[in-house]
Amino acid sequence: FCFLTSKFSADMVEQLLTLAQDWGVQVTDESFARHLDSNDPLHSFRQRFHVPLVKDIPKSDLGLVNGEEQCVYMAGNSLGLQPKKVKVYLEEELDKWAKLAVHGHFDGARPWVYFDEIISSSMASIVGAKENEVALMNGLTVNLHLLLLAFYKPTAKRNKILLEEKAFPSDYFVIASQIEMHNLDPTSCMLLVTPREGEQTLRREDLLSTIEREGDTIAVILLSGVQYLTGQLFDMASITHAGHNMGCVVGFDLAHAVGNVELSLHEWGVDFACWCSYKYLNSGAGGVAGAFVHEKCMHSVKPVLIGWWGNDRENRFTMENKLKLIPGVRGFRLSNPSIFLSCSLQASLEIFTEASMPALRKKSVQLTAYLELLLQRIINAESKEQLKRLKLKMITPTDPVQRGCQLSLQIPMLSQPVLQELERRGAMCDIREPNILRVAPVPLYNTFGDVHRFVKLLKDSFLAVILKDQNNIP
Amino acid sequence: FCFLTSKFSADMVEQLLTLAQDWGVQVTDESFARHLDSNDPLHSFRQRFHVPLVKDIPKSDLGLVNGEEQCVYMAGNSLGLQPKKVKVYLEEELDKWAKLAVHGHFDGARPWVYFDEIISSSMASIVGAKENEVALMNGLTVNLHLLLLAFYKPTAKRNKILLEEKAFPSDYFVIASQIEMHNLDPTSCMLLVTPREGEQTLRREDLLSTIEREGDTIAVILLSGVQYLTGQLFDMASITHAGHNMGCVVGFDLAHAVGNVELSLHEWGVDFACWCSYKYLNSGAGGVAGAFVHEKCMHSVKPVLIGWWGNDRENRFTMENKLKLIPGVRGFRLSNPSIFLSCSLQASLEIFTEASMPALRKKSVQLTAYLELLLQRIINAESKEQLKRLKLKMITPTDPVQRGCQLSLQIPMLSQPVLQELERRGAMCDIREPNILRVAPVPLYNTFGDVHRFVKLLKDSFLAVILKDQNNIP
Ligand SMILES: Cc1ncc(COP(=O)(O)O)c(C=O)c1O
Ligand SMILES: Cc1ncc(COP(=O)(O)O)c(C=O)c1O
Repeated sequence: FCFLTSKFSADMVEQLLTLAQDWGVQVTDESFARHLDSNDPLHSFRQRFHVPLVKDIPKSDLGLVNGEEQCVYMAGNSLGLQPKKVKVYLEEELDKWAKLAVHGHFDGARPWVYFDEIISSSMASIVGAKENEVALMNGLTVNLHLLLLAFYKPTAKRNKILLEEKAFPSDYFVIASQIEMHNLDPTSCMLLVTPREGEQTLRREDLLSTIEREGDTIAVILLSGVQYLTGQLFDMASITHAGHNMGCVVGFDLAHAVGNVELSLHEWGVDFACWCSYKYLNSGAGGVAGAFVHEKCMHSVKPVLIGWWGNDRENRFTMENKLKLIPGVRGFRLSNPSIFLSCSLQASLEIFTEASMPALRKKSVQLTAYLELLLQRIINAESKEQLKRLKLKMITPTDPVQRGCQLSLQIPMLSQPVLQELERRGAMCDIREPNILRVAPVPLYNTFGDVHRFVKLLKDSFLAVILKDQNNIP
Repeated sequence: FCFLTSKFSADMVEQLLTLAQDWGVQVTDESFARHLDSNDPLHSFRQRFHVPLVKDIPKSDLGLVNGEEQCVYMAGNSLGLQPKKVKVYLEEELDKWAKLAVHGHFDGARPWVYFDEIISSSMASIVGAKENEVALMNGLTVNLHLLLLAFYKPTAKRNKILLEEKAFPSDYFVIASQIEMHNLDPTSCMLLVTPREGEQTLRREDLLSTIEREGDTIAVILLSGVQYLTGQLFDMASITHAGHNMGCVVGFDLAHAVGNVELSLHEWGVDFACWCSYKYLNSGAGGVAGAFVHEKCMHSVKPVLIGWWGNDRENRFTMENKLKLIPGVRGFRLSNPSIFLSCSLQASLEIFTEASMPALRKKSVQLTAYLELLLQRIINAESKEQLKRLKLKMITPTDPVQRGCQLSLQIPMLSQPVLQELERRGAMCDIREPNILRVAPVPLYNTFGDVHRFVKLLKDSFLAVILKDQNNIP
């Protein structure tokens, strides 16, 4: 169980230890968490969200935990909590639909016909893009396809797509099916990068040297910004630079990066990117996805599949079947946008605008370092002997510049029982099969207190599982 | 201004005239509308919807009409009215999101992970399909593309797509861009069918003979079920039969047909179809779209673009990048479904199930015949001389089997001022450029009283426009 190797993370720990000393508390004390929370300038943003109560979760065991308490929600990397304003905005638009019906398309504060455009400037600033480099449309997998159709133009010599071996399944299927669409063979055209033997994450230098070595044959590099399983944050600027040096197109799936880490897509020169909004962007299951096409590609890269929503707004309703394609990513839009999905995203984006990504990231680095420190001090230190049984290992990089908020713990033995014990105690996180426990303290609504409670619950869960295992209790 | 030529429509008029006589009222009297409404078994369904009030519409003129009255809503072909239950269902799922957060995917009455599947049986029955022939996903234009990618396989000899010259713009762009994707030339591969010289709608025999004549070179026939501009209902059974005889694939865009006319996609043997849900299906702007792939194509036609939602549910979450593609249309799904969009559609589909398409269609035929009759009796008869100025013409077929609920009036002169006058008086319908006024009495919520009021308002509007025109008032 190895922690805290890099310089930067050692600094973070130093900082936390100094703070504890200043306040005259132990770093593992609950009171330290309270001090950190009361010094957190973003603390009040939690009030903007609905946090589930223990008693409402069917899996929690009210013999073990007070039902009136809020859950320790560490699953914002999977589904973000609900901003309270979502309901308000939805009700406003329901009211408008009730009162104006079809006139809602052009009337009111959110004319439905360009509601997506109204919220795209705040979306753009979260990914570090210009407003017209961003579109809100469809689901993430749909956007991956639409973008690859335009950006993946294999030739005899250059026909590969570079991706991680452990890419998210949808990305994997997207890439394989795109390759097959060109009558090419996925086994030879999918260039899978894998960690070194015995390692779990990709080394930056290995990624860059693969690009340099194989770049001639690579048409598109498509990596995630933050890896969904390991929580590793890739160095998108260097990857983009290296890819471009070799003449490759570079794109990113930002599902786990958007709203989690700071992004500068425009500045980095990324060619295209897309993301979903139901994780860190808190838009609700099946929320509208985003897409980015760099300004420099605005006139050179055109959508392959076209619909009326890619047509210039002036021309769109003349019904003359004349196409004046909007340059750039907005020309990729096919169908009219959804009122409801724009409402829920707007409610969340407003909070991001107010909190700002730099401030969120600053808190996030500290919050996750605190989680790491407590895991080490409380779990690793106090229960070393018993824990050997579980063969626990943290697979997320310890270096804050190589990760977002999520820490992933590999639990080779009894991982499902651990999750069950956590859930019985009112903690919410998840396991990605076969055995990766993902824990994501989200700076927008998670507190240092949450982290402290979580680590205690994790320890209790570990011990309960080990005890049951020893006593052969299922 | 020509009406009522066909046998069937003459029967309908006969029926109405007999009813009026039985009740001892004039067919043009408002009291006749009241009688018809009180004999309408579907009358109470209007209560399930929010009908806009005149005072809430910014364009209405409270000097001309009582603000407390409900609008005459004849625009359900563009955007359906809101079922009152939409808000209830949305609030239930917001509550679930607030209380259960990520557990909502598998818990509760509508587990989000298969919420779309929960409502597809009622969707399937509206289009006359088996449940596993239908998927709810994306927007309509997106689905058109996904289906064409799988069904349009041009060869040297057979590479054309047959469509209407006046196809909806998005369909037109979809088809043109699909053809270009195959490096073919849209001008030669788009086989546009046009009405005869001087006619506005396509004759069945012309369509069928074109298919017979050109069928050898046609890869896909893609027509609308009901034409958005003219309101013409195509004979989908015969077209499918004729297309299959010539070896063509046959698909339909049902945007204006679904929830409007009875459909038997399975029985007709249609290969594929898709539709939006915000018109007659009342799911709100940007609602989730539908797609149909016939059972017989289940194993022979595979999606070209693949995502994790097309993967078998057992395999989907194992994160092993192993694909076990769901056979048929559900294998075309790419992204996880939206909670909100499923809620709004569910609220509406339940009403359809209760009312039933056969009953709705029965009322619809009578309601639209009544509209046609009143247009003839009130407008054409009473104001013939003045109306010559407008060169009015109904372009929708008079035969009920060749139309849904919509009637389209061509108003070559002063059409925009006519729409404005209608709106000032609390009527809602639309003009599709340049000059087609579309009027759609929807059997689910429109009454015979609405139709009567509408025709009176239309007459008043015509006269007001003519008067202003004569007096040079803008
Ligand atoms: C016939 C037809 N096809 C396609 C569309 C495009 O729909 P969407 O924006 O939902 O893709 C419409 C929209 O009104 C339509 O009427
Ligand atoms: C990295 C990544 N890519 C793609 C997807 C697929 O998303 P969607 O269902 O929104 O298309 C997800 C969903 O969790 C994801 O995490």
